[in-house]
Amino acid sequence: MIKVGLYGYGNIAKGVECAVKQNKDMEVTCVFTRRNPETVQTISGAKVYKTDDVLNHKDDVDVLVMCGGSATDLPEQTPAMAEHFNVVDSFDTHKRIPEHFANVDAAAKKSGKIGIISVGWDPGMFSLNRLYGSCILPDGADYTFWGKGVSQGHSDAIRRIEGVVDARQYTIPVEEALEAVRSGSEPQLTTRQKHTRECFVVAEEGADLERIKNEIVTMKNYFDEYDTTVNFISQEELDRDHKGIPHGGFVIRTGKTGKDLENNHVIEYSLKLDSNPEFTSSVIVAFVRAAYRLNKEGQSGCKTVFDIPPAYLSIKSGEELRKEML
Amino acid sequence: MIKVGLYGYGNIAKGVECAVKQNKDMEVTCVFTRRNPETVQTISGAKVYKTDDVLNHKDDVDVLVMCGGSATDLPEQTPAMAEHFNVVDSFDTHKRIPEHFANVDAAAKKSGKIGIISVGWDPGMFSLNRLYGSCILPDGADYTFWGKGVSQGHSDAIRRIEGVVDARQYTIPVEEALEAVRSGSEPQLTTRQKHTRECFVVAEEGADLERIKNEIVTMKNYFDEYDTTVNFISQEELDRDHKGIPHGGFVIRTGKTGKDLENNHVIEYSLKLDSNPEFTSSVIVAFVRAAYRLNKEGQSGCKTVFDIPPAYLSIKSGEELRKEML
Repeated sequence: MIKVGLYGYGNIAKGVECAVKQNKDMEVTCVFTRRNPETVQTISGAKVYKTDDVLNHKDDVDVLVMCGGSATDLPEQTPAMAEHFNVVDSFDTHKRIPEHFANVDAAAKKSGKIGIISVGWDPGMFSLNRLYGSCILPDGADYTFWGKGVSQGHSDAIRRIEGVVDARQYTIPVEEALEAVRSGSEPQLTTRQKHTRECFVVAEEGADLERIKNEIVTMKNYFDEYDTTVNFISQEELDRDHKGIPHGGFVIRTGKTGKDLENNHVIEYSLKLDSNPEFTSSVIVAFVRAAYRLNKEGQSGCKTVFDIPPAYLSIKSGEELRKEML
Repeated sequence: MIKVGLYGYGNIAKGVECAVKQNKDMEVTCVFTRRNPETVQTISGAKVYKTDDVLNHKDDVDVLVMCGGSATDLPEQTPAMAEHFNVVDSFDTHKRIPEHFANVDAAAKKSGKIGIISVGWDPGMFSLNRLYGSCILPDGADYTFWGKGVSQGHSDAIRRIEGVVDARQYTIPVEEALEAVRSGSEPQLTTRQKHTRECFVVAEEGADLERIKNEIVTMKNYFDEYDTTVNFISQEELDRDHKGIPHGGFVIRTGKTGKDLENNHVIEYSLKLDSNPEFTSSVIVAFVRAAYRLNKEGQSGCKTVFDIPPAYLSIKSGEELRKEML
């Protein structure tokens, strides 16, 4: 059994707990939290400890899943824990990945452990599809579309506006843009042409709805470059119709081959997810297995999804995979 | 520059020649044929030799791409050549893969070379998507659909019927079946429910069309388990409208996550290819790069797409990949 520890206990950690139950070669052995452990009840019944105690539990953990946020938690915590544990995180600030990689790599090489960073679906499975697509069709272009799905960051941004009680924001890919990409014409698409944004907003009684709407659609970096629709609804409607955290998207690579590049090809990878965090957690758990195996083989240092032979993700043996799946 | 040799010179080999031109770190240095070399004109201008001379060209070839057929050529040729060269083949008889793997592995381990077998899109990219999908969503099911595309084997089978001059057969996935799969209901689908077959047939003048049609739709292993449409057309129409070798298909994995498996997810990978052999060749060429690199690192033995870290397929460095694609 692969002993899995969780560092942090939010949505991702809970998703990992559920996903581990679906994989019979692993178990969650302990959870580390900054909160008072006695106030935390785990889904799996795993024991809860203070994060300060984590080094006392080195023998209880084969792989520690880092479940904090990318903004401030993971840049500190993943390198710190890689000095003692095999770690997997879902660091998703694309621009800071090179820096994060270097920090985790230094720590993991020192400890002889494995750190796999930026695991999930984007970065993660979408990245893999961008990579495979570009290697197979070098003369081409790739496009990533997100949605339809809830953007937590955009929902939070709306909630910070005066007079807003609650909000939910959906990112929606533009169907015409998807079709233009699938045609193989390699269109140049602006931000506005690729996605629209749809907001469901609960306002305080008597609030100036026109002002709220205007503040949303003109908000810099979040909404100003998009066509945005704002719908005011009641808290009851929001709770009833917009409770889930669905997401998904598309990675499409088009490219040409042949003597005169006369043949077109379209590779399309898409996800439709009822629960964004649970899917991310499910990807993480597959890479937990890879981290464990790589380290058992004596490897160390930082890895990404690009560095992992796919067979390392599977509970099945090489023989079984070749027989059943190739 | 990676020096690529081609063993055999049919559609796949020509596709590899074109694909190599699209990758600036490799070149086709020589082609080996069973025909009289003087009768063979290569696209790239690479020199042509008799297959009997292949061992005299060990220094001219870093990776030898095996371009013969899966029925009789590759089972003999790939292990034989793996005793002397790094090799990549597109062996696609799924049932015989374990046996082929064992033969190539023994040969390649003896020579200290790398052999990557069963590279293409199915087996190949479709296999990878079946593997990734099953690892991420263990509680689920996967489905592979082929088409719309030309099946060479089925077209050949029709041509062998008395009174048939020429024929082209398309395999077509059933849209209702695709939709049922995408719903996440994990339907049990019969062969007939998944695909239909459409045939375009040129008959001899005066031939008994009813008999030909009947022989097609009842042909065992090829057509009897499918709903098959037969269209009789002229040779001119066949040449004009059915000249290409398009293909493609879908790998769909659906699965559930969550405390009570209450959330559904759909992962879909699809290909729409103008040229089946050229796309297969493009995949092969990416894995040629991996074979070269693995062997440079000192690795040997037989590998499949499951064993190759995705980064090994790319001309870009790890740093570039993390910065640009993750």
